[in-house]
Amino acid sequence: MKEASRQMHLNLFAMGNGHHEAAWRLDESSPQGVTDFAYYRELLRTAERGKLDSLFLADTYNLPPTIAYKVLQGMEPFTLLAALAMCTERIGLIGTASTTYNEPFHVARQFASLDHISGGRASWNIVTSTNDVTAANFADERLPAHGERYERADEFLEVVKGLWDSWADDTVVADKRGGVYADPEKIRELNHKGSYYAVRGPLNLPRPPQGYPVLVQAGASEAGKEFAARSAEVVFTAQNTLADGQHFYADLKARLARYGRTFHEVKILPGFSAIIGDTAAEAKDKEDALQELIQTEYGLKRLSNMFNTDMSQYPLDEQLPIAELPLQETINGHRGRHQLYVEMARREGLTIRQLMFRTAASRGHYSFTGTPVQIADELERWFVNGAADGFNLMPSSLPAGLEDFVDKVVPELQNRGLFRKEYSGCTLREHYGLKRPEGKQCR
Amino acid sequence: MKEASRQMHLNLFAMGNGHHEAAWRLDESSPQGVTDFAYYRELLRTAERGKLDSLFLADTYNLPPTIAYKVLQGMEPFTLLAALAMCTERIGLIGTASTTYNEPFHVARQFASLDHISGGRASWNIVTSTNDVTAANFADERLPAHGERYERADEFLEVVKGLWDSWADDTVVADKRGGVYADPEKIRELNHKGSYYAVRGPLNLPRPPQGYPVLVQAGASEAGKEFAARSAEVVFTAQNTLADGQHFYADLKARLARYGRTFHEVKILPGFSAIIGDTAAEAKDKEDALQELIQTEYGLKRLSNMFNTDMSQYPLDEQLPIAELPLQETINGHRGRHQLYVEMARREGLTIRQLMFRTAASRGHYSFTGTPVQIADELERWFVNGAADGFNLMPSSLPAGLEDFVDKVVPELQNRGLFRKEYSGCTLREHYGLKRPEGKQCR
Repeated sequence: MKEASRQMHLNLFAMGNGHHEAAWRLDESSPQGVTDFAYYRELLRTAERGKLDSLFLADTYNLPPTIAYKVLQGMEPFTLLAALAMCTERIGLIGTASTTYNEPFHVARQFASLDHISGGRASWNIVTSTNDVTAANFADERLPAHGERYERADEFLEVVKGLWDSWADDTVVADKRGGVYADPEKIRELNHKGSYYAVRGPLNLPRPPQGYPVLVQAGASEAGKEFAARSAEVVFTAQNTLADGQHFYADLKARLARYGRTFHEVKILPGFSAIIGDTAAEAKDKEDALQELIQTEYGLKRLSNMFNTDMSQYPLDEQLPIAELPLQETINGHRGRHQLYVEMARREGLTIRQLMFRTAASRGHYSFTGTPVQIADELERWFVNGAADGFNLMPSSLPAGLEDFVDKVVPELQNRGLFRKEYSGCTLREHYGLKRPEGKQCR
Repeated sequence: MKEASRQMHLNLFAMGNGHHEAAWRLDESSPQGVTDFAYYRELLRTAERGKLDSLFLADTYNLPPTIAYKVLQGMEPFTLLAALAMCTERIGLIGTASTTYNEPFHVARQFASLDHISGGRASWNIVTSTNDVTAANFADERLPAHGERYERADEFLEVVKGLWDSWADDTVVADKRGGVYADPEKIRELNHKGSYYAVRGPLNLPRPPQGYPVLVQAGASEAGKEFAARSAEVVFTAQNTLADGQHFYADLKARLARYGRTFHEVKILPGFSAIIGDTAAEAKDKEDALQELIQTEYGLKRLSNMFNTDMSQYPLDEQLPIAELPLQETINGHRGRHQLYVEMARREGLTIRQLMFRTAASRGHYSFTGTPVQIADELERWFVNGAADGFNLMPSSLPAGLEDFVDKVVPELQNRGLFRKEYSGCTLREHYGLKRPEGKQCR
């Protein structure tokens, strides 16, 4: 039975009209869709038709300064995911919430509620906020330092887990005759008093159906990788070569042991941005059509933001001035992504313009243009060679790129016995093969 | 045309298995339902069948200390309301968010997102948190003082409105050829720096379809009434006699002028908890069945909490010791409700046990047991005699009490020309006859 062999996990990372920064400018795209619920509903139904494990929504708490040039990323995740839960039955729902500018009580409760509403399909992508523009929306002049952000994230997660565990699984007895709704012996206060948070608890919702919603993480800095090794169950990552992917995979899996965790407790999903054509030529034409719509002015602002340096001061067609850029260690933001861009430019000898075009499809994630068979080959190559437990799919355009993937690549993967033909479980933990955390008993 | 005459507004206040504290113990009740989405979906579909203006969900950020005795109030409002938006088409969705333990940026964004998702049906019940148990979930030893809470609420609302206005209505141009998604000239920073909040903005979502989601308020203290007069568009209130209702109505409407507002800009909806029987005797039997399920232990805890005094130290069957209770002015909580209980006990000469039973049906809101015609008579009496623009319906049991109301009382009101037979508008503002706030133009 091929089906019983190791299976790939596939997540849809939905963003705007697709991950290519110019996708919204395609004739077929609907930039008004990103604030219209019907647009997401159709995306998610397509993803569920393809038996994908989950949908992931990224999030930030500020308006990008480049909003003139590029469609909005999307809506507020909790409201959107809860609405999407109603239009789907099996697919998981991964929302992003920052540990930098939130209250643990609210975050614990919103994910618990989403998990109840969706019947155990909720998941939390745990992030730290990465720019001072966000800070200014929360009375902060600037972000906490990189290390402090991760200290906060650790404590924040500890509090949230404690709140989820504040009700034992069997707390609600609903004994009408005896007049007992909940057994108070099975509810406990948390009484957390740490460096950053003080939360008494208990939560005002029963323990989530999944125990904890699935914990996702994507930080690629040293602190981010240690956080993932300690706490994450699904890890998104940007890797551009099989060798890099293998190195990251081996490195992260090796870190698990020191936290008492085993190989299969974390699923690693590199980003994969496909442009799909029935022939290689058709795929290339689609890629060219997208690249032609790139706006240099936007690209320069994007790179300037990434490097915390005004890139318009350098000639566009000369090599990226790596030596003049701030050192990775001094960047208090997407530290891992900064490193990835610099290494990409160094390895491939890219000019600023080339780096801009090279990263337009998926902001540094792995991009691949080809036929369904070529794409399935590439996914299989990473999957069987120790670089991936599955993929974070980042279609260059939406909905077309997702439809192509579901209709053409998924059947190819299924025929190879690499991907499910039907959902076998109901909860997101079941899709990812993750065990349900036991509740902590009181007293 | 009777239809064109002044029409009543009806809101469903859904809570647990109904507003009577013992409703969850009825054979017909489903205490497990309150954490199950399907339960709310059926409630809301019934309410929409009855052409009700809106659903309202109350909320608190702590577990009630009496959870052993009484079913949970409900789930987290943003996730639940967004999910409910998907299962309904017209009914408005009123969620509660506290101005005491939230960030204005998150609240502005979540309501904006809900308004987009629901096609203009979102509404915010603006509250201040009312107990120290909540404070302890947010690193606070105790609540801010009553006056400070309202100062915060004013500033919080100012920031949220500013964020909703940070995009002009026509900001999104989605000009694919020109490569312009949003006109940056029509987006503005807020740069708010006040006593309690500092928020730069702009919001990362377009202006809500309704301009602002409908603003609801229910505080009954002096500070609460002034807040309502300044800022609310729908006011929920607890009034126990027609005379009290008339007084509150006239008082609040009279306060509007000093804020440059007119009579019809605020709709006043007293709470109304009905127990409905086809005959008066059947209604009384239903009431008796509920009252028999009351638990004295719970009732005492509820009163102790309200009066901030251990009520078990007093004899149950002697008059409420009003002189020994803390003065209303010293209560930093539900100050208006405290006053209402004391006045009810004084007017009716109630013992502690009688007050407990008297307030079990709806925590001090007006309760009425009778036939559909008697109930319609009572609603009409308040509506035509200057005590109400409509009602905040608080069925004693759910779903049965709502079904009775929709199937038996609503047709009676419709036949009298007092309530719509069909929705005439799409947005919640249209249901309530409230005008859409104009956007603020930049520069």
